[in-house]
Amino acid sequence: MQPFDLTLDDLRAAAARIAAHARVTPVLRSDALDAATGATLHFKAEHLQRGGAFKLRGALNAVWALDAATAARGVVTHSSGNHGNALALAARSRGIPAHVIVPEGAVRTKVAAIEVAGATVHRCAPTLAAREAAATAVQASTGATLVHPYADPFVIAGQGTAALELLAQAPDLDALVVPIGGGGLAAGSAIAAHALRPRMDVHAAEPEGAADAWLSMQRGERVTDVVPDTICDGLRAAIGAPNFALLRRHGVEVLPVSDAETLAAMRRLWAALKQVVEPSSATVLAAVLRHRQRFAGRRVGLILSGGNVDLDAIAFCARCGAAG
Amino acid sequence: MQPFDLTLDDLRAAAARIAAHARVTPVLRSDALDAATGATLHFKAEHLQRGGAFKLRGALNAVWALDAATAARGVVTHSSGNHGNALALAARSRGIPAHVIVPEGAVRTKVAAIEVAGATVHRCAPTLAAREAAATAVQASTGATLVHPYADPFVIAGQGTAALELLAQAPDLDALVVPIGGGGLAAGSAIAAHALRPRMDVHAAEPEGAADAWLSMQRGERVTDVVPDTICDGLRAAIGAPNFALLRRHGVEVLPVSDAETLAAMRRLWAALKQVVEPSSATVLAAVLRHRQRFAGRRVGLILSGGNVDLDAIAFCARCGAAG
Repeated sequence: MQPFDLTLDDLRAAAARIAAHARVTPVLRSDALDAATGATLHFKAEHLQRGGAFKLRGALNAVWALDAATAARGVVTHSSGNHGNALALAARSRGIPAHVIVPEGAVRTKVAAIEVAGATVHRCAPTLAAREAAATAVQASTGATLVHPYADPFVIAGQGTAALELLAQAPDLDALVVPIGGGGLAAGSAIAAHALRPRMDVHAAEPEGAADAWLSMQRGERVTDVVPDTICDGLRAAIGAPNFALLRRHGVEVLPVSDAETLAAMRRLWAALKQVVEPSSATVLAAVLRHRQRFAGRRVGLILSGGNVDLDAIAFCARCGAAG
Repeated sequence: MQPFDLTLDDLRAAAARIAAHARVTPVLRSDALDAATGATLHFKAEHLQRGGAFKLRGALNAVWALDAATAARGVVTHSSGNHGNALALAARSRGIPAHVIVPEGAVRTKVAAIEVAGATVHRCAPTLAAREAAATAVQASTGATLVHPYADPFVIAGQGTAALELLAQAPDLDALVVPIGGGGLAAGSAIAAHALRPRMDVHAAEPEGAADAWLSMQRGERVTDVVPDTICDGLRAAIGAPNFALLRRHGVEVLPVSDAETLAAMRRLWAALKQVVEPSSATVLAAVLRHRQRFAGRRVGLILSGGNVDLDAIAFCARCGAAG
């Protein structure tokens, strides 16, 4: 299967494959945020997915699509973020080994979570070349299958199940807004949306400091040399080749947002929607607020991609004296 | 109708009455909190109810149960907290006047929310006598109906719809834990639980610093002279007379928790369940953690009562520099 050939059937097969291990996440509403945007917002709460992010969907689909003999040799990836944790959880759900290549300097709490989930952590130098060499070495010595974080058809199909679920829960949406990093969620969401609603507008919110997808769409060719500078640690990856091809086919519109807009939107999500989300999740609301006139009066689905923030970085309650 | 006569039919009538105006709130799960307690926890997310608390249910039921002529004269209450805001929203949903008596010194943001919801705010001295006198004066001059925050059959029936909904969403629960202040939610929940599952254990989590319900159950008579001292601003009210009678009839077990336990539980709810809840909501998890051996291995429903916390009291993110 190639990513470009993915159809609704592949997404439905993914949904069936992961159903026993992933959560059906709720769709949340807020009168205050509807009033602030003039739109009717439906937030798909993927930060409440197991592992705290939509990433589990793609990882589960990739792991459970392997034949038994291949699966038994394990899986490997090089991601120190939510995908590494998701692959560890997915492998555990099938009882197979997982190897996660982690560059030196990765966030300690995220590495700890990957180890708690039962994966073997392999440390390497913090360069892309070192990561890929380490992954190749693990593949050679164990026979493990590489599960790429986003440029993989099973991962894209798995991520697309979030939008598939959202469109079943809120069938009358006019538009969809999802965050974009490498483009696994964006590509999967576009396939789901257009299979069910061919004329639905699909938008991808991207940090201005990592706007390679926006630049790629502007130029009509994939740009991979952007050096990311954004607080959205989940959206720093460069757009994948099959992901870019799918964005173009589906006419996904990329909407850049500044980190300041993202932080303001994150605060609104905490205060009004009462959800602890990470900055990457808040880009979608930031995009709707920046383009108010475009979304006003419409029924908009927004995917909240993750909730893995470090509460230790927050002084918990100044009023009562409890501190983080 | 007297509170003591309330039946499942009254709760079902309440559910039908409020359906167009209240939200069906989701039930949330967390693998990490299940592991921490050894139980299977189902959190009913009433902090995601309109107005940010379950209180809207009782207020809506009371407002929509009035005949048209009575309703037209409006409603009045003396509560500067979530009930005042809920009554303002309920009155607005029916297009009738609401009067809320607010003692001097009440939290500014809560008073502002009541005004935004369209109620007329009447200020009075911060004593119970002054509040009741002011409410009586409003009733005399306007003909408005007093809607008590908890010692009212329609309010109790309305609050009971949260548990009714939870038991439909998670039908196999063994036990229920709800916060207790005046006892509207606890009484309504006990009626719902025992109508559907006669042998279900119903527990009420109460701050040690406002343990009048616990003391009343111990002594077998209602105690009303406890001076509350707790961070749980939603649970400072004294147990109501009909509420106490219903607690006794249903054998509700009151579980006191310290403010320190509540704050620790609140932090877990923010970090693991990713929900912005107020301290009152966290008492239920604090009670399960304190009595681990009693709940281990059981399927437990917990009602998260509200999410109205002041984020301005929180330094938002020390890492990225954004401050509250």
